[in-house]
Amino acid sequence: MTLKIGVIGTGAIGREHINRITKKLAGGEIVAVTDVNQESARTTVEQFNLNAGIFPDDKSLIADGNVDAVFVTSWGPAHEESVLAAIEAGKYVFCEKPLATTAEGCMRIVEAEMKHGKRLVQVGFMRRYDSGYVQLKELLDANFIGDPLMIHCAHRNPEVGTTYSTDMAISDTLIHEIDVLHWLVNDDYKSVQVLFPKRNRYAHENLRDPQVVILETKSGIVINAEISVNCKYGYDIQCEVVGEEGIVKLPEVATVPFRKNATLGSQILMDWKKRFVDAYDVELQHFMDSIKETGEPNGPTAWDGYIAQVTADACIKAQNSGVKEEIVLQEQPSFYKDNVQPTNV
Amino acid sequence: MTLKIGVIGTGAIGREHINRITKKLAGGEIVAVTDVNQESARTTVEQFNLNAGIFPDDKSLIADGNVDAVFVTSWGPAHEESVLAAIEAGKYVFCEKPLATTAEGCMRIVEAEMKHGKRLVQVGFMRRYDSGYVQLKELLDANFIGDPLMIHCAHRNPEVGTTYSTDMAISDTLIHEIDVLHWLVNDDYKSVQVLFPKRNRYAHENLRDPQVVILETKSGIVINAEISVNCKYGYDIQCEVVGEEGIVKLPEVATVPFRKNATLGSQILMDWKKRFVDAYDVELQHFMDSIKETGEPNGPTAWDGYIAQVTADACIKAQNSGVKEEIVLQEQPSFYKDNVQPTNV
Amino acid sequence: MTLKIGVIGTGAIGREHINRITKKLAGGEIVAVTDVNQESARTTVEQFNLNAGIFPDDKSLIADGNVDAVFVTSWGPAHEESVLAAIEAGKYVFCEKPLATTAEGCMRIVEAEMKHGKRLVQVGFMRRYDSGYVQLKELLDANFIGDPLMIHCAHRNPEVGTTYSTDMAISDTLIHEIDVLHWLVNDDYKSVQVLFPKRNRYAHENLRDPQVVILETKSGIVINAEISVNCKYGYDIQCEVVGEEGIVKLPEVATVPFRKNATLGSQILMDWKKRFVDAYDVELQHFMDSIKETGEPNGPTAWDGYIAQVTADACIKAQNSGVKEEIVLQEQPSFYKDNVQPTNV
Amino acid sequence: MTLKIGVIGTGAIGREHINRITKKLAGGEIVAVTDVNQESARTTVEQFNLNAGIFPDDKSLIADGNVDAVFVTSWGPAHEESVLAAIEAGKYVFCEKPLATTAEGCMRIVEAEMKHGKRLVQVGFMRRYDSGYVQLKELLDANFIGDPLMIHCAHRNPEVGTTYSTDMAISDTLIHEIDVLHWLVNDDYKSVQVLFPKRNRYAHENLRDPQVVILETKSGIVINAEISVNCKYGYDIQCEVVGEEGIVKLPEVATVPFRKNATLGSQILMDWKKRFVDAYDVELQHFMDSIKETGEPNGPTAWDGYIAQVTADACIKAQNSGVKEEIVLQEQPSFYKDNVQPTNV
Repeated sequence: MTLKIGVIGTGAIGREHINRITKKLAGGEIVAVTDVNQESARTTVEQFNLNAGIFPDDKSLIADGNVDAVFVTSWGPAHEESVLAAIEAGKYVFCEKPLATTAEGCMRIVEAEMKHGKRLVQVGFMRRYDSGYVQLKELLDANFIGDPLMIHCAHRNPEVGTTYSTDMAISDTLIHEIDVLHWLVNDDYKSVQVLFPKRNRYAHENLRDPQVVILETKSGIVINAEISVNCKYGYDIQCEVVGEEGIVKLPEVATVPFRKNATLGSQILMDWKKRFVDAYDVELQHFMDSIKETGEPNGPTAWDGYIAQVTADACIKAQNSGVKEEIVLQEQPSFYKDNVQPTNV
Repeated sequence: MTLKIGVIGTGAIGREHINRITKKLAGGEIVAVTDVNQESARTTVEQFNLNAGIFPDDKSLIADGNVDAVFVTSWGPAHEESVLAAIEAGKYVFCEKPLATTAEGCMRIVEAEMKHGKRLVQVGFMRRYDSGYVQLKELLDANFIGDPLMIHCAHRNPEVGTTYSTDMAISDTLIHEIDVLHWLVNDDYKSVQVLFPKRNRYAHENLRDPQVVILETKSGIVINAEISVNCKYGYDIQCEVVGEEGIVKLPEVATVPFRKNATLGSQILMDWKKRFVDAYDVELQHFMDSIKETGEPNGPTAWDGYIAQVTADACIKAQNSGVKEEIVLQEQPSFYKDNVQPTNV
Repeated sequence: MTLKIGVIGTGAIGREHINRITKKLAGGEIVAVTDVNQESARTTVEQFNLNAGIFPDDKSLIADGNVDAVFVTSWGPAHEESVLAAIEAGKYVFCEKPLATTAEGCMRIVEAEMKHGKRLVQVGFMRRYDSGYVQLKELLDANFIGDPLMIHCAHRNPEVGTTYSTDMAISDTLIHEIDVLHWLVNDDYKSVQVLFPKRNRYAHENLRDPQVVILETKSGIVINAEISVNCKYGYDIQCEVVGEEGIVKLPEVATVPFRKNATLGSQILMDWKKRFVDAYDVELQHFMDSIKETGEPNGPTAWDGYIAQVTADACIKAQNSGVKEEIVLQEQPSFYKDNVQPTNV
Repeated sequence: MTLKIGVIGTGAIGREHINRITKKLAGGEIVAVTDVNQESARTTVEQFNLNAGIFPDDKSLIADGNVDAVFVTSWGPAHEESVLAAIEAGKYVFCEKPLATTAEGCMRIVEAEMKHGKRLVQVGFMRRYDSGYVQLKELLDANFIGDPLMIHCAHRNPEVGTTYSTDMAISDTLIHEIDVLHWLVNDDYKSVQVLFPKRNRYAHENLRDPQVVILETKSGIVINAEISVNCKYGYDIQCEVVGEEGIVKLPEVATVPFRKNATLGSQILMDWKKRFVDAYDVELQHFMDSIKETGEPNGPTAWDGYIAQVTADACIKAQNSGVKEEIVLQEQPSFYKDNVQPTNV
């Protein structure tokens, strides 16, 4: 049984997913593509030698009877409409972040999905499929270190372009920590505060970099998250959870230890694309497998997309206010409560 | 384009490969199976819900027009005959080690393949596809540490059953180092010596364990390889290459660092199956991809299978003689010289 | 030339220092001791077989013509008076923390010392002599990572007794970070905020544990310091400085890496006394050497003692207020500015 | 009680020890010096501002009534005569390696010492006082990994001068492993074999470098020791002991971990002098302390010096013969058997 997939948006991430489905993973087939740039859609079909229809827009692609599931890999502001249309049509959706650009938009998707009656939507938070985070989650769930009390984490990029703005440190960068951390500790955020240390001399003029975001959860976990997007030295994701009896930490990427030039070292990745390349594979394979096995995707839900958006909004508010801001979520519908994402994927 | 695969031998490794092709990798389909135990073949077809014919024996499976490639995953002594039959029929072959149980048998396959005129056979030495070894190879090929002078390596298993005999330390265990190390340094073995340290008290009565195997290559690289199959603490593969200007080493498996009970630690695998699970995936995907792209597999060749067998024979001779034994290979046919296995797989 | 030392306070730390001077270091001799418990003083003289006078109180010991320098190792509230008396008598002073229990008391010492006209006092902040911190300081001073922007640090004890109170997390525990961190980055503190995460179940009823202290310096460095005094797993001091171009971190204590029981690990100290045992040695040797070579001690000054006290007071205020508190220091007298403590001790 | 020390040989190592006794350690005083170069002796007295007599030769220094102990830090060939003279005079001796340049010479010292009736001599094998080796020894003695079966070790220098010859890899370099390894495992050597890998291009023309020395002990432990004296990257001492249930390894030198320029690294020492600087301190303090406490030094004995010499001779023989050479020691006199060197120094 092959899952027939239509791709909305054939930019970089869209083509990467097409490559995965076509050349690396089992059980999926790209049968339809569309892009606001029709030339991009055509080129993509040729590049991957796809046996796929080229559609004029998302609506027609979603409507096609041959399409079981859609990948929403267009630009962010277009996501909500495509996802709502797919739900309306009863099609499965894998939507890259953001699910929608506003909390209200996310909530409209949540409500549409609940109205439909079963889960159709998975949001592209790939870190939950990273081997390191999965190991952390397993140990935390097994109570290996007792209750978690604090998380120290960091998201560091070697550099960013001049279009990267202070709020993108939240919406484009921290957004991944926002999703993965609450999943890791099975908790919800309560408040956030943002500190701006001395600016890195390599940050462009209008950018506050680095930033320290301090989140507190309902159970009282204090998270301090460093965001550095001009750290120069590499792309580096750190996460350490301090519990009542011990500490667990994301493993370093397994690169070759060397001894040379008076240094005992190992390489740090410079390119973020390589960091979670395996996680993307697992994510998409798992999306297809869970649909086949249970009739529903069971990765990050539309509700997780809503949490991410509300939290990101509060973080940006805290960037501007300089004080602690509350994070107010609606009550989680029971519809989403039984989504138990396996870690042993 | 799907590669249609017939599987000869539906034991543990056969079923694992079927699982990969069916559930994890792109571009292959299991269309035929056979096993000396026909019930095993039938069960396998059911278990994986395969759309595959069940054949009475290897010959009939190989002869089937629907089969593009065969996986030889039967027991070792049966390999040679199946591989020769597949070559005769012009079918691609992925053969688990050993290619044949004797050097002469390997040479018969080499000759049959050369007679056929293009490479059809890949031997299942999966370590060449392990991310750590691939990184080592890239650094060595880039002359990162100058010429290699020594290799210190270890192959450790927590324990073995009572049927495991002293020579199996070579034929079942060291065989993987034998293949991967000469590939790593682009060199051939010249001699071997085996030392038996004090016996581990956990080794069964008839087993010499641990062993230290000292190989020398034609260029003068000295390799000391520890084999410990009752090390108790874990399944652990170590490999350190000492060059003229520095050292590179296989990375540790990336498990979660923890602090607990007065220990800063990380878990060591106990189960060898987990160690190279990703390498097996890459290996089979690469087998299928290279056939599609170039018309030939370009992983470990029949010649590599021959090298492994000759070297293993000399190691076992050295176990018994207690002295240094020569390793005498026939000259490598030019047919195999142009096989440049990519490391960036 | 031997430095003749009188010890005020023969409790645990006093006896440890006597042991150092007598059995491990060069150039000092214990010639006088006193303790509020005269029996303790007598026992100490016997235990170490000292050729030392036993004095009825600090004043008489300080007044003794044979005494060149005094060690103030009595309980905290008694420090100020002893130090002032020693300055009055023109004797060198090595004073364990706190220099005085109030900022005003520290300032009285600062003023007395300035009035005397040369430095006599060194405060017992031993971390500045720890090999790890010294290496960090050297790298920061050499601009190895550019300007420091953030510090992530942690001070963890396995457990504390029931007399340990929430404010002691500052005055007894964080006090060491307070001293060493401003020295490390050549900066002064500007403000502090204290967060209380979920309480560790192992903390006694009246103790808020863990705590997260967020300090900001005048140049804008943001320091987040975790204090955990019931972390169970060990005594663990962490310090990571994030700069504009890289990161440096305190090395782990050099304990034996082992592989056993499915774990790749190394021991974490449980006993804080062992962590800085070498630093104490270097500290006292350096105290004696600098006096001999320059006529003044050049370790942590009375002014450093004042900084520590003002900062600790602000931290405790922040514990209670829940909001950010300013840290207001008087201007540093030029008298102290030329104290360049060497790192290559 | 001060140990009054006479120093025979005021070259580099002699002056370093004088510096230690004078400026870093407790309980010793340099009261006499001599050197074949009298000008060196005079300069040394001035440099360290010693209150010490300058003697014309070793005999007169040893004879001086003020001298309790002598440090033999002259060149190797002169050691034996000085040590024998000191024993004759009943003076304690700390003798840098070699104890004597021949096994016979060592045996003459052993016999002289036994005739004297108590231990007077300690040989300068400082590694036994290195914190890392001490930890290894404690774990091995506590049976932490069961019986030791193999040792993998390496002694690497960044480079050597043109006067360094192939045999010096044994007598000057491996000699430290020879001493420390048999102490570590409480065993004696039985045989040795030397392999010469491909020569490092940085080795000078007449030097075989690297070398692999394979030692076997009476209990069957197999030791493979790599010697590389042109490794370029640093001064690096590695030692890993493989036991029946686990592995323990010398810790890396505790240098600051950094992240910079795409590298997670830490510095490797280039200068061998820094590697064991602390061990030298502990060694000399322990020499003085044990004499004071027990009337005898209890570090490495004259017998250990004899073992080292016999073993080194066999290694050099094996370098030349290319085959396994036996290591034949006389039976250890009971006089030396009760020397239990403490590890908790």
